[in-house]
Amino acid sequence: MIFPVILAGGTGTRFWPKSRSRIPKQFLDFVTPESLLQATKRRLNRLSDREQIYVVTNRRYVNKVLEQLTCLPSSNVIVEPLRRDTATCIGLATSKLSTVDPEGVMVIVPSDHYVADEERFLKTLCRGVEAAQRRKSIVTLGINPYSPKTGYGYIEQGEFIEEYSDALAVYKANRFTEKPSLETAKEYLDSGRFYWNCGIFICRVSVMLEAIHRHMPRLAKGLDKIKSSIGTPQETEVVKKEYRDMEKVSIDYGIMEKASNIEVIPCEFGWDDVGSWSILDNMLIKDNCGNAVKGNCVNIDTNNCIIDSDGNRLVATIGVDDLIIVNTKDVVLVCRKDKDQEVKELVKKVKEPRFRRYW
Amino acid sequence: MIFPVILAGGTGTRFWPKSRSRIPKQFLDFVTPESLLQATKRRLNRLSDREQIYVVTNRRYVNKVLEQLTCLPSSNVIVEPLRRDTATCIGLATSKLSTVDPEGVMVIVPSDHYVADEERFLKTLCRGVEAAQRRKSIVTLGINPYSPKTGYGYIEQGEFIEEYSDALAVYKANRFTEKPSLETAKEYLDSGRFYWNCGIFICRVSVMLEAIHRHMPRLAKGLDKIKSSIGTPQETEVVKKEYRDMEKVSIDYGIMEKASNIEVIPCEFGWDDVGSWSILDNMLIKDNCGNAVKGNCVNIDTNNCIIDSDGNRLVATIGVDDLIIVNTKDVVLVCRKDKDQEVKELVKKVKEPRFRRYW
Repeated sequence: MIFPVILAGGTGTRFWPKSRSRIPKQFLDFVTPESLLQATKRRLNRLSDREQIYVVTNRRYVNKVLEQLTCLPSSNVIVEPLRRDTATCIGLATSKLSTVDPEGVMVIVPSDHYVADEERFLKTLCRGVEAAQRRKSIVTLGINPYSPKTGYGYIEQGEFIEEYSDALAVYKANRFTEKPSLETAKEYLDSGRFYWNCGIFICRVSVMLEAIHRHMPRLAKGLDKIKSSIGTPQETEVVKKEYRDMEKVSIDYGIMEKASNIEVIPCEFGWDDVGSWSILDNMLIKDNCGNAVKGNCVNIDTNNCIIDSDGNRLVATIGVDDLIIVNTKDVVLVCRKDKDQEVKELVKKVKEPRFRRYW
Repeated sequence: MIFPVILAGGTGTRFWPKSRSRIPKQFLDFVTPESLLQATKRRLNRLSDREQIYVVTNRRYVNKVLEQLTCLPSSNVIVEPLRRDTATCIGLATSKLSTVDPEGVMVIVPSDHYVADEERFLKTLCRGVEAAQRRKSIVTLGINPYSPKTGYGYIEQGEFIEEYSDALAVYKANRFTEKPSLETAKEYLDSGRFYWNCGIFICRVSVMLEAIHRHMPRLAKGLDKIKSSIGTPQETEVVKKEYRDMEKVSIDYGIMEKASNIEVIPCEFGWDDVGSWSILDNMLIKDNCGNAVKGNCVNIDTNNCIIDSDGNRLVATIGVDDLIIVNTKDVVLVCRKDKDQEVKELVKKVKEPRFRRYW
């Protein structure tokens, strides 16, 4: 069995004011009317039956998930009672799936990324599944980096394992690294041996379970208790209780940086983590003046702007360049394009009591 | 009797998106919660009884006027069935007032201007009224110009008539001129004999009526018919019929440029015609970064912006300078400060069918 597991519990601040505490990024549509979550699910539909697709999310987003993924059986939504990091989240999914088919393969994917070449994406996942079925390893996808980004984690490619007919190959992963300095990132890029970690992990359920037991014993203990409660009337209560004690640790830090059975498939499928507003420059079609517009817009002498106007609202501009303008029901953001990383800082101000209703 | 006559029938495009076809500029609040019309009325309250204050407006704005000026007797709203220019509008008011007190003094003022020094303003009007009571002339107020504006009409001062104890004096007006070229405007400024025409006219009802008969016989004819219908069941129908045939002519062109009995009181009371968004720079209090803000705003690295956010909406900015940002229910305008004259051009685009609902 193949189990796509979509991680949809995140709360993003970088797409404020479109993303809010109640509607994080994965539920938003940036390019088409389809949300990032809906697009993620659609890309995975061809990998397995809908009964085998799982979504892990925080309890406050369950309704949103079911509303957006109309064909998803509601029992396939795995609910986190509290916000923990990805290790706990993946752990919970692993516990659940181990009661379904411990030798099934999990394909763990973030819900809020963008993929341009969907065919290539699917092909790569299939190769990952093959590798995971063949060996007791955790297979990761390593995106071919095109710039020394300091905001991503990197995977170093090790010894060659095997090659597929479609030019994809799988290697041992020597190491996972956190976000590097610019200097280090440049070295990585020059070496040709480093890839971006796009947060996709493919492995048998049993392999993940074993990795958790080895590298995160405390998590494993909690998950064992959860597992034995699954299907009983106490399940929700047990999950809640155990979650409270779990650490906030990412899967990268908790397992990937420690485990030795990691493999990597270097690949390229027009991936983007949709990290901040300016990325829409690459995703939206531009007009003659270089403006990437979604929604209603009328302008004079306006160049290279990104404009996102919700619903029936109109954005009108005169004599402006290189701006990001986001127009929502109650907030408008006007941000210089090269300052979009500071949206996070702005959100800190918005979270203060005076403006809290806008977060 | 003194009759303040407030002209409130204009439709302004330069304050779009705050001003709309349904809510022109005079009904808007820019600085305080008080609208320009409400402020105009309040300034005139001390000049005469509320029963003697009249408002001329288009029929589509009657309800708006009564809503904003709660103490105004509804019979004091003089209704124009169609849009004509100021000559017709003032003519209609003159007809009406001639049935009340032909020797009363009309103080005709636009409804959408700003006055900083209200005491000085009132004092100047009182001197104007005195002059109008004393002679059969039309007294105008000439604003001391501080720059060679090409967007205003100018009044040339002629021979001295009399001076008042408070340093105000009244002169013959040699001529009224249309908006000049920059070169001419500079000459005007250098001469020290030219003043801005702020659209305030003070004269006896009978004097205005005579001027209309002399300089605009066609208008006079229509007004005569209207006058004889006032108070009859046919009044509305007659006004409507006569209006249809009236020319679109301004009072400046139709009468002021032709009449010889014009006087001018040079004066200064912090007047502004609130001509475009950037004027708010002078009207709003600024923060440490030079931002003039009305409404909710949160920002990072933002300087010298004018921000107007309606109701409970929030404007958030990062890394921007010298912008005008206007946030309304359905439209947001982002305009470089020195391009605010182009709002008019933008509105032309908005009036096209596709965006018409935003006008």
